[in-house]
Amino acid sequence: MEKRIGTFYGVSVGPGDPELMTLQAVRRLENCPVIAAPQTPKGGMLALDIAKGAVELSGKTILPLRFAMSLDPAVQKAAHIEAARAVKEYLDAGQDVAMLNLGDLSVYATFGYLQEILEAEGCKTVMLPGVTSFCAAAARLGQSLTGGMEQPLTIAPGRCAAEVLAAPGAKVLMKSGRQLPETLAALADAGLLSRSAMVCNCGLPNEEVWPDLADYDPARSAGYFATILVKEG
Amino acid sequence: MEKRIGTFYGVSVGPGDPELMTLQAVRRLENCPVIAAPQTPKGGMLALDIAKGAVELSGKTILPLRFAMSLDPAVQKAAHIEAARAVKEYLDAGQDVAMLNLGDLSVYATFGYLQEILEAEGCKTVMLPGVTSFCAAAARLGQSLTGGMEQPLTIAPGRCAAEVLAAPGAKVLMKSGRQLPETLAALADAGLLSRSAMVCNCGLPNEEVWPDLADYDPARSAGYFATILVKEG
Repeated sequence: MEKRIGTFYGVSVGPGDPELMTLQAVRRLENCPVIAAPQTPKGGMLALDIAKGAVELSGKTILPLRFAMSLDPAVQKAAHIEAARAVKEYLDAGQDVAMLNLGDLSVYATFGYLQEILEAEGCKTVMLPGVTSFCAAAARLGQSLTGGMEQPLTIAPGRCAAEVLAAPGAKVLMKSGRQLPETLAALADAGLLSRSAMVCNCGLPNEEVWPDLADYDPARSAGYFATILVKEG
Repeated sequence: MEKRIGTFYGVSVGPGDPELMTLQAVRRLENCPVIAAPQTPKGGMLALDIAKGAVELSGKTILPLRFAMSLDPAVQKAAHIEAARAVKEYLDAGQDVAMLNLGDLSVYATFGYLQEILEAEGCKTVMLPGVTSFCAAAARLGQSLTGGMEQPLTIAPGRCAAEVLAAPGAKVLMKSGRQLPETLAALADAGLLSRSAMVCNCGLPNEEVWPDLADYDPARSAGYFATILVKEG
């Protein structure tokens, strides 16, 4: 009999509120014996906390994954290889592993790096989509992301603000937290502050909603999960 | 005692697979007595069919909404006003109404038009986010939408293909169905066919997956719900 190799699942848990997990994500986590979850240097595991809000995870193996905060590609790559190696031990032992991802795992997510490494080693991978932070932020603000049906929508990391603000249509600036002063300066330079809204930590207990960024003190710090929506002109 | 006015909920049901509905959407539909759902001229109610795959809706009032296929803004507006009027009858009678939306209701959705009309009449509205078709299509293809962490992602209606293909980063072309020949021609002109993938009717029984659009016969027709992903260069 051929030896069973586990499947590596990427499971999107949405931006923060466990109620925004999909039925598919909940069922997959219920059926997976090993849950891999990113862990910060201080030990925080936000994606795991969200999943626990919807799924009973006691009795499962929890595999913390540490990803380098460094911007050095070589350091990042080493962390991805190390995390993939830890996952593969369980796959080789015939156990399925579900890696948790905030928001949706196809948008600026770490899952893709591990997926590439593990697929190259012959492992089967499956992606489960979820609710993005920008869709949740738009719903929280009660506004559409796309004003009309004909204009494009540009999604970009906060640090790319200056490059994308001149494009037609609406914009979303994601994970603006650490770059918030620069992002706000770029919006101010473009005269777009009063057309911009921000949601920080959407759906989490420390959520903040700013419907008009002209009201925001640029010196005030925001969390890492700050999503800015800029309406089209 | 003040008369109770119902709340108008916009409920995202995701792109097709009922398993991609959120826990929040399922619970809201379970608790809402009136379900408003778009209906095609032939009587089809796809969003309702998806919801029925996850929620028991028997015994609830189903309110079909007809939206004009016309591109004439005056004709569209008249249809939105008529639909809002039909919803408001239930709200005025103290009943909550949940309007179903394919994908996520903040991205190219009709809900916003009814929301604007009903809010102007003093009604309370609430938006529930969901999984977008492009996130589901990326997961179905097993690929990330954003190759790296630094590049923007442009979402656009298929008919805007030529305008957005020169922008940096990856692109999503949505609802390309009717404009598919023109969209494919724009991709061919830009030399991007072999960097493009398409998923039609993602998660539905008639789903089609094309990982490489260079293999697609441009004369072949596709459904309305054709989502094209173009990788960054």
